[in-house]
Amino acid sequence: MLKENRNSLRVASFYPLVSATLKGISQVMLIENAVTGLIILIAIMISSVSIGIIALLSAFIATLIGRLGGVDKAIVNQGLLGYNSVLAGMALALNLEGGQRWLLALAGATIATLFTAAMMHLMQKSKIPVLTFPYIILTWFLLLAAYRLGMIQLSPNLIPQDLSHWKLHPEGTLNLFHGLVNGIGQVYFQDKIWSGILILIGVFWASWKFGLYAVIGTAVGWLTAYGFGAEVSLLNFGLYGYNAVLTILAVATVFEAKSRFAPFSGIIAAMISIPVTASVDTWLLPYGLPALTMPFVLCTWLFLAARKVIPRL
Amino acid sequence: MLKENRNSLRVASFYPLVSATLKGISQVMLIENAVTGLIILIAIMISSVSIGIIALLSAFIATLIGRLGGVDKAIVNQGLLGYNSVLAGMALALNLEGGQRWLLALAGATIATLFTAAMMHLMQKSKIPVLTFPYIILTWFLLLAAYRLGMIQLSPNLIPQDLSHWKLHPEGTLNLFHGLVNGIGQVYFQDKIWSGILILIGVFWASWKFGLYAVIGTAVGWLTAYGFGAEVSLLNFGLYGYNAVLTILAVATVFEAKSRFAPFSGIIAAMISIPVTASVDTWLLPYGLPALTMPFVLCTWLFLAARKVIPRL
Amino acid sequence: MLKENRNSLRVASFYPLVSATLKGISQVMLIENAVTGLIILIAIMISSVSIGIIALLSAFIATLIGRLGGVDKAIVNQGLLGYNSVLAGMALALNLEGGQRWLLALAGATIATLFTAAMMHLMQKSKIPVLTFPYIILTWFLLLAAYRLGMIQLSPNLIPQDLSHWKLHPEGTLNLFHGLVNGIGQVYFQDKIWSGILILIGVFWASWKFGLYAVIGTAVGWLTAYGFGAEVSLLNFGLYGYNAVLTILAVATVFEAKSRFAPFSGIIAAMISIPVTASVDTWLLPYGLPALTMPFVLCTWLFLAARKVIPRL
Repeated sequence: MLKENRNSLRVASFYPLVSATLKGISQVMLIENAVTGLIILIAIMISSVSIGIIALLSAFIATLIGRLGGVDKAIVNQGLLGYNSVLAGMALALNLEGGQRWLLALAGATIATLFTAAMMHLMQKSKIPVLTFPYIILTWFLLLAAYRLGMIQLSPNLIPQDLSHWKLHPEGTLNLFHGLVNGIGQVYFQDKIWSGILILIGVFWASWKFGLYAVIGTAVGWLTAYGFGAEVSLLNFGLYGYNAVLTILAVATVFEAKSRFAPFSGIIAAMISIPVTASVDTWLLPYGLPALTMPFVLCTWLFLAARKVIPRL
Repeated sequence: MLKENRNSLRVASFYPLVSATLKGISQVMLIENAVTGLIILIAIMISSVSIGIIALLSAFIATLIGRLGGVDKAIVNQGLLGYNSVLAGMALALNLEGGQRWLLALAGATIATLFTAAMMHLMQKSKIPVLTFPYIILTWFLLLAAYRLGMIQLSPNLIPQDLSHWKLHPEGTLNLFHGLVNGIGQVYFQDKIWSGILILIGVFWASWKFGLYAVIGTAVGWLTAYGFGAEVSLLNFGLYGYNAVLTILAVATVFEAKSRFAPFSGIIAAMISIPVTASVDTWLLPYGLPALTMPFVLCTWLFLAARKVIPRL
Repeated sequence: MLKENRNSLRVASFYPLVSATLKGISQVMLIENAVTGLIILIAIMISSVSIGIIALLSAFIATLIGRLGGVDKAIVNQGLLGYNSVLAGMALALNLEGGQRWLLALAGATIATLFTAAMMHLMQKSKIPVLTFPYIILTWFLLLAAYRLGMIQLSPNLIPQDLSHWKLHPEGTLNLFHGLVNGIGQVYFQDKIWSGILILIGVFWASWKFGLYAVIGTAVGWLTAYGFGAEVSLLNFGLYGYNAVLTILAVATVFEAKSRFAPFSGIIAAMISIPVTASVDTWLLPYGLPALTMPFVLCTWLFLAARKVIPRL
């Protein structure tokens, strides 16, 4: 009986750890749901098992730091300390080369946890959520460090370009279905159809409302980007969509969406995320960096802060 | 009688709308005065009727959003929600090409209103005014988006340049009078003499003190820029002056200028705005963007925040 | 007797002025100790008397502004208004050319004092220290202004480069001793051995603990940079070390280092400062600007803010 008790104690302390870790994965989508986290983890593993392991370990590191570091348990258990680590670990593993990238990815995930805590403190007074800001800045910084440190090897896909020699190449064949599904999958860097669909299933599992908004978000993003004359390759890869998906979720339903105009504001915010994505891409062109979820962060901050002054937004 | 009553009610609700809109135009100069706003609107229309209409519509959109959105009436009626929209609308209409630019300008004015509200919330605790920061960031972002979106056409005047190939061309013939008048006109993107003079008249209409400071500001700006060896073409177009004009107004008289050294601080701040203008121009060179009023914002924030710690500033 | 009294009064008001000025020099190292400030001043003068005079005058200007401006005496007397001015004055004198650079350096020191006061106000609520942020931004701004203003002449060492043409040159002969000593000396822009040693003596004078941490910091910085494959020339010049030294001092002992893990956190923070240094160098490459102490500021802010949420850090 004593043994059983100890076992149940071990389970009791183990279960919240697993739950917080899986919620860290689902919180990337602004969802607190361990099952959704698990479904999404499987969706990632379909494309690449190693990237899935990095995502899981990154979320686990964040949970562990939260526990050992004495962070407010509610924050840790909701997975709010982990989602930036998940994204940082994945982004670094995907954008670096060489064997040491796995170590760098986990180191990045660790720093992302500290950075998330730091931003939580700095933004506390403003009552605006941190979102994925820490992961973005951290990833940009670590990727750029590669240019001065021989041990960090950058993926050859990241090419710095001179804006004065830049030419837009909008030609190509549109693939609407791929574009729409990838717009959801790209939230987790996925451009395989089945991964995207599985992620969407995970979102619907958490809430019908969330799933619907995700679908509306990717559609609004695609249409707006198409209307603005965006590059076809980016449309097909869903690279305009994922920021629109995250933005509509945040503005229309997750954060203080009390006004009856909130769904409408969410659609407008998702539309605005398109030129903002184009702009962030241009800012980063000389550095060869990807926009990541910065457009989502900027558009969501814009609407959430504006809502404090314009209540009917 | 009933009909008359209804009419007067309609007028009663219409008048503050017009007043707030015109004050939105005058607030670009840190002035709350509907007549000044009207005079300045005429000054803009002398150069271009369509740009004047954009300025008016932009201010009107901001007022409308403020009303319908439930913003604190005092803020809306003072025109404090509108001046960023006025500038964003004008800047976009002037720096974009093609028929759709009018629509983009008004869309930009709308987002500028939200951005102004957002910054008001974020800066509330610091007790430092938002100034024209939202309009600047918004305009830079929308102009850069043009490089990735075929539908947005950039004016060919905006040329990204490599700093490593940059050479200073300070030669040219100085025109002191043009430079001084344009230094005031450029607050509203005007480089026609009569527009500049009319804007100055509008400022004097609001207050003799403001008019005098505007004149001192453009003179201090011109002299400092000349002394630092600035490019003659920029001096003649007043492109160093307008930031000095706005800075001296803000620091010497508008914001918490209680110290008897405030006029002196205003002059120093106006002088500092010159190297800051040169610097912002350099930062933006690789992106081909104009400095807009960022030097004014930075110098004014510097002095207003420093004043909280150095009371005799 | 009356005369004697007056003299002693004069001395009484003169001594705190000198003390605050010298403490302004020592505060660059996060130390409040006038003797340490004097030793460091001598260390600077060994390399260059004129740079030493600039450092002294810059600290003096800051103290004077603090006194005449009515700043809280505790802040002024601890030298907290002065260290940014010391660094700004020195950095501008070292990175500009021509006779007018002395004047520009002192003007820069003056603005640095205002900027420090401004940042103190803006960061007050966050309870995070300003560190050397004002000096860094100011120096970057003034150096870039040189590209548009003929009167400001930039040192030819500052060369803007295109990241797309950048190649890493890690070859060279390591000199461990030089690298370690310079890692301390570079806090004050010194790369002469005797200057570095004298600065270290000054630090040990203030506190054994500080001296030890400075030695550990430069060692940790060197080893981490070497492990990451940093450029040998930068290692020898101590250009990775000084940010690690400052970071370990700040995180391990100076600011709210109450947790027993603080020394360990300090070492981790010093290690993180290495990729951050590499990254800031890359960001600034197109502008040809030096990283200065930005990596220290970013890493220290990261840890101090994270500590508010993760108490056992």
